[in-house]
Amino acid sequence: MTNKKSRTEENNFKVKFLPFETIVEVPPGTSLLDAVKTASLPLKTTCGGKGTCGDCVIQIIEGTYHSKPSAALSDKLASRGFSLACQTEVKDNITVQLPQFRELDIKSIVDSKFFKEQRDNISGVYELNPSVKKIELLLSPPTLEDNYSDLRRIERQLQKELALKKIDCEYSVLKKLAQTVRKNKGKISIFLSLSGKQATVIDVAPQSEGKKLYGIACDVGTTTVALHLVDLQNEKILATASSLNQQIACGEDIISRINFAQKPGRLKKLQELIILTLNNLIKKASKSAKVSISDIYLASVSGNTTMIHLLLNLEPRYIREEPYVPTFNQVPTILSRDLGLKMNNEGRIYCSPAVGSYVGGDITAGLLCTPILRDSKKVALFIDAGTNGELVVGNKEWLMTCACSAGPAFEGSGIKCGMPASEGAIEEIKMLDSGEFKYKVINGTKPQGLCGSGLVDLLAELFTFGYIDRHGKFNEKKAGKKIVKTEEGKGFLIEEGKNCYWGKDLIVTENDISNLIRTKAAVFSACSVLLKNVGLGFDKIDSVYIGGGFGQHLNINNTIRIGLLPDLKREKFHYLGNSSLLGAYLILLSDKNKDLANEIAEKMTYIELNTEPTYMNEFTGALFLPHTDIKLFPSVKQTLNL
Amino acid sequence: MTNKKSRTEENNFKVKFLPFETIVEVPPGTSLLDAVKTASLPLKTTCGGKGTCGDCVIQIIEGTYHSKPSAALSDKLASRGFSLACQTEVKDNITVQLPQFRELDIKSIVDSKFFKEQRDNISGVYELNPSVKKIELLLSPPTLEDNYSDLRRIERQLQKELALKKIDCEYSVLKKLAQTVRKNKGKISIFLSLSGKQATVIDVAPQSEGKKLYGIACDVGTTTVALHLVDLQNEKILATASSLNQQIACGEDIISRINFAQKPGRLKKLQELIILTLNNLIKKASKSAKVSISDIYLASVSGNTTMIHLLLNLEPRYIREEPYVPTFNQVPTILSRDLGLKMNNEGRIYCSPAVGSYVGGDITAGLLCTPILRDSKKVALFIDAGTNGELVVGNKEWLMTCACSAGPAFEGSGIKCGMPASEGAIEEIKMLDSGEFKYKVINGTKPQGLCGSGLVDLLAELFTFGYIDRHGKFNEKKAGKKIVKTEEGKGFLIEEGKNCYWGKDLIVTENDISNLIRTKAAVFSACSVLLKNVGLGFDKIDSVYIGGGFGQHLNINNTIRIGLLPDLKREKFHYLGNSSLLGAYLILLSDKNKDLANEIAEKMTYIELNTEPTYMNEFTGALFLPHTDIKLFPSVKQTLNL
Repeated sequence: MTNKKSRTEENNFKVKFLPFETIVEVPPGTSLLDAVKTASLPLKTTCGGKGTCGDCVIQIIEGTYHSKPSAALSDKLASRGFSLACQTEVKDNITVQLPQFRELDIKSIVDSKFFKEQRDNISGVYELNPSVKKIELLLSPPTLEDNYSDLRRIERQLQKELALKKIDCEYSVLKKLAQTVRKNKGKISIFLSLSGKQATVIDVAPQSEGKKLYGIACDVGTTTVALHLVDLQNEKILATASSLNQQIACGEDIISRINFAQKPGRLKKLQELIILTLNNLIKKASKSAKVSISDIYLASVSGNTTMIHLLLNLEPRYIREEPYVPTFNQVPTILSRDLGLKMNNEGRIYCSPAVGSYVGGDITAGLLCTPILRDSKKVALFIDAGTNGELVVGNKEWLMTCACSAGPAFEGSGIKCGMPASEGAIEEIKMLDSGEFKYKVINGTKPQGLCGSGLVDLLAELFTFGYIDRHGKFNEKKAGKKIVKTEEGKGFLIEEGKNCYWGKDLIVTENDISNLIRTKAAVFSACSVLLKNVGLGFDKIDSVYIGGGFGQHLNINNTIRIGLLPDLKREKFHYLGNSSLLGAYLILLSDKNKDLANEIAEKMTYIELNTEPTYMNEFTGALFLPHTDIKLFPSVKQTLNL
Repeated sequence: MTNKKSRTEENNFKVKFLPFETIVEVPPGTSLLDAVKTASLPLKTTCGGKGTCGDCVIQIIEGTYHSKPSAALSDKLASRGFSLACQTEVKDNITVQLPQFRELDIKSIVDSKFFKEQRDNISGVYELNPSVKKIELLLSPPTLEDNYSDLRRIERQLQKELALKKIDCEYSVLKKLAQTVRKNKGKISIFLSLSGKQATVIDVAPQSEGKKLYGIACDVGTTTVALHLVDLQNEKILATASSLNQQIACGEDIISRINFAQKPGRLKKLQELIILTLNNLIKKASKSAKVSISDIYLASVSGNTTMIHLLLNLEPRYIREEPYVPTFNQVPTILSRDLGLKMNNEGRIYCSPAVGSYVGGDITAGLLCTPILRDSKKVALFIDAGTNGELVVGNKEWLMTCACSAGPAFEGSGIKCGMPASEGAIEEIKMLDSGEFKYKVINGTKPQGLCGSGLVDLLAELFTFGYIDRHGKFNEKKAGKKIVKTEEGKGFLIEEGKNCYWGKDLIVTENDISNLIRTKAAVFSACSVLLKNVGLGFDKIDSVYIGGGFGQHLNINNTIRIGLLPDLKREKFHYLGNSSLLGAYLILLSDKNKDLANEIAEKMTYIELNTEPTYMNEFTGALFLPHTDIKLFPSVKQTLNL
């Protein structure tokens, strides 16, 4: 029995997938697409493995393989090792790159124009006072007259430096204490986790080892995950890393992930996938910043309530069952070793507090980056348009919030020509009077697709130039031969294959356009219902802050033109970018922000759209470009002569 | 390679040792004595495996074996499956009982006469207020109007019942929270670990599961380990279990254990052995009380500083190197899962606080059981004569302490006829005028050896009747044929083999007597030095409290006659028995006792005997029966006409 098994295993081949470093063993002749499925990795395919859509393109880095030729892949790409996963058989141990998982184009908001101007006005504080501290101590050598225990000698010194009520000590520290304090003539670095006047010693090292104190701020999104690696002794962001959330293979939105989790073992699987995603990012960031993973002592994570439940392996089903009760809103501090996160074993993990099942810690974190809580009179609107859309309206005195299932369209997911804001994504696009497009690609390569901001532009331009009508249907007469046939129905040619990275025509389908319209309608109608609930018209809004995964550049004019955002004076709008990530960073830097986030979470009143009778009407009204009720969009009406 | 290995393994036999349930695999023909060594289990042997001393007797419970006959084992015992381990070859998978590891005869001090009379006068408090509590909650069902998170609903209810400042929650609880609160219509049992106004939720279960709250109090001695299993809802002791400390195979005293730990892997091994010992006792106690191990949430452990270092896998070498600095005196709370102790995974472990390297938590715990700290004027002496001897003198105002290496002789270890106070041990022995002995055996069986109290009696009787002189040497003229030859030199016949359990003559050797005299001298001289240090004579002592592993009954007259204890009025003496265990029990019951123990530990002044110039003189003087200076023992002088 043993022999038989080992023979089978011997004949299997190992397939290693980059950038995940996941390895699976498969029998010879297995298609790479099946190997990807075995590895539970995400890879989109539209044609279902027939070799016609070309979506499942991968690049083979090492090892021999056999691929059937396909019209969906140019010879040039094929010669560079690109293949369609569905047309490739495993014949050897091979290493495969999944090109859809390029690093996202995330620049820290810390460096953004908005933040540079506003950093002294934001609701959070921008100060360095993290809850984990490194303290350098010099212990005097023990004598027969002064032979207190090692631990007491440390406590005595600590009390001199900090006024503490209680000092505790992790068991792992006790185990190495005797050796450590004797290594460098009593010169030691102590790592403390502080909570008020209480401290826990979480690590100790001889000063000669030169251990540092780092932290990570993470935004765990349904579609994308991003993190900053931060030096907690000087608040510097040393590295930024991001990728798709590997859970995407188990469903694109929150509801499908929750459904996926309902079979035995699947919840654990989802946890493993997000931990894998985070660990890959931590590894990447640490490597690039030349930081030892064991020097990372603190993590601040923000994400929607479902993502945090999945990260922590907590049953998510009651989030989607009425009355929508999550396990927690404020998560107790979690230990890195309980999750298997690549940090110091005694690392502490904070999760931003949630308001409820559908307004999560990404929103409370995001609010820290806005000036909303500074002002008692002016009214601000905060919109986070990620895979879910969450909205907050209010000021220092009151806050009202709601959520809608926007879907990941503006993160480039579920759209044929969509992609995350990574290298090769069109982030800005303009139609010339000639009907040709002029566009800007991230990193200046040949285009592979469009990210959120590009999709907003595309929709606005097609609408402006009359290539689609107010329902989002193609004007075939006008478009002529720009309308092409695709497996998913009619499409509009954006760029010819010869000019594109994959050698395939870049096309937006009518389905894609419907999808984008549904998404913008969900956000706008949520916005209307929220404001009606507080009895305010759009004109009473003094500022609008926009977060989300659109990419670096969002054209506000175009968001209004397609009816995603309300038609207000352009100077009222501030595009933040990934505010959830910046909020996590602020919480990482100072416990004051953690307390403030808790306060915000407590304060906010949540409106359940599912039980709002007017929501469905509002949504239906918003399924037009820009809206059924054109009076809501006077500037668009005027410009486009509607 | 794989095949070869599995063939070798197939031919090996499994030997299972009771009561430890340790299993080792050995090649056919291995002697059982070697198998015992492979298993790192303790089994004494004097002749070194020649089959003559009969010490290594074991009983084979199951499986076939081959034993050479030996004069050291009666046919009757052989017919009952008893064998000498050194003369037995493994020929089969067998199960072996190590008979030296019978349950100790530990009755709870709670039931002792002393404690019944004194329980309202002891320094500790005798109240039920443990730091882990079980709270029954009824959560109202969530609605759309009241859809707070599960955790918040619990916190809200808890705040109503207890006035808490902060409520934390273990990650393991979070993971099962959603399911648990929905199982029994919101009726849940919450298990809280409390520290002042702070609480941590460490477990949650539906009330229908009927989970209970139990704790264990443990005395981890160098030679013996004992524990009480306690119902923390009514303070009842449900079961008591005890055995030798399995570490004994690695050295009989503290110094030899510390030396043993100096090679790689050995410290871990020592930790494993004590955890194994404790886990066997917990299993046994839980089984007898029909208690689920997962219902044990709290452990209170007292032991000397070295034992606690070994239990926690902490480097012990600096305990024995000048200036004798331990890792800790007050140990932070340890989690059961970090140690692998058989309790609930979130179980909390307290260790009684130590004064220093040689006065440990067993002493601070022991003091809780005495009235010493109640009185500001009277002076009391506390003596714990275990493997180490520790002494405390003082009262409410001041406390002075010292320690001496007494050795485990009075725990029955290192003495040919000695044994722990378990079934078959002579606990009282008297010499008749005829020169015959009259004795009382624990559980009334045939005698196997003598425990501490029996050894004290034996020494006193031999001395009283003139069979040994003041140096402890035999009076051969008087003893005549009672003096027999043994492998270790001359011995005195206590009982003939036909009347003994093992069928072998029960003999005390001259070596044994020297050993006992050295032990009593160590204790008495420490006592003298301690008192001289505080400038008090013995006559200034108002009470003497004696703890230690002598067994249930200690004859105070005899302890004085041999010069172990000072010659004071008999009514001043109180024999406590295992005060360390009772102290651990008191700390388990109430946090107030933990605080008091910390206070005691802080307060005590430690005198290092190693640097006391007079100690060696005092020790030499005490190597006589009862003492070189007979004036110190006027009542003995008078009675024995010395």
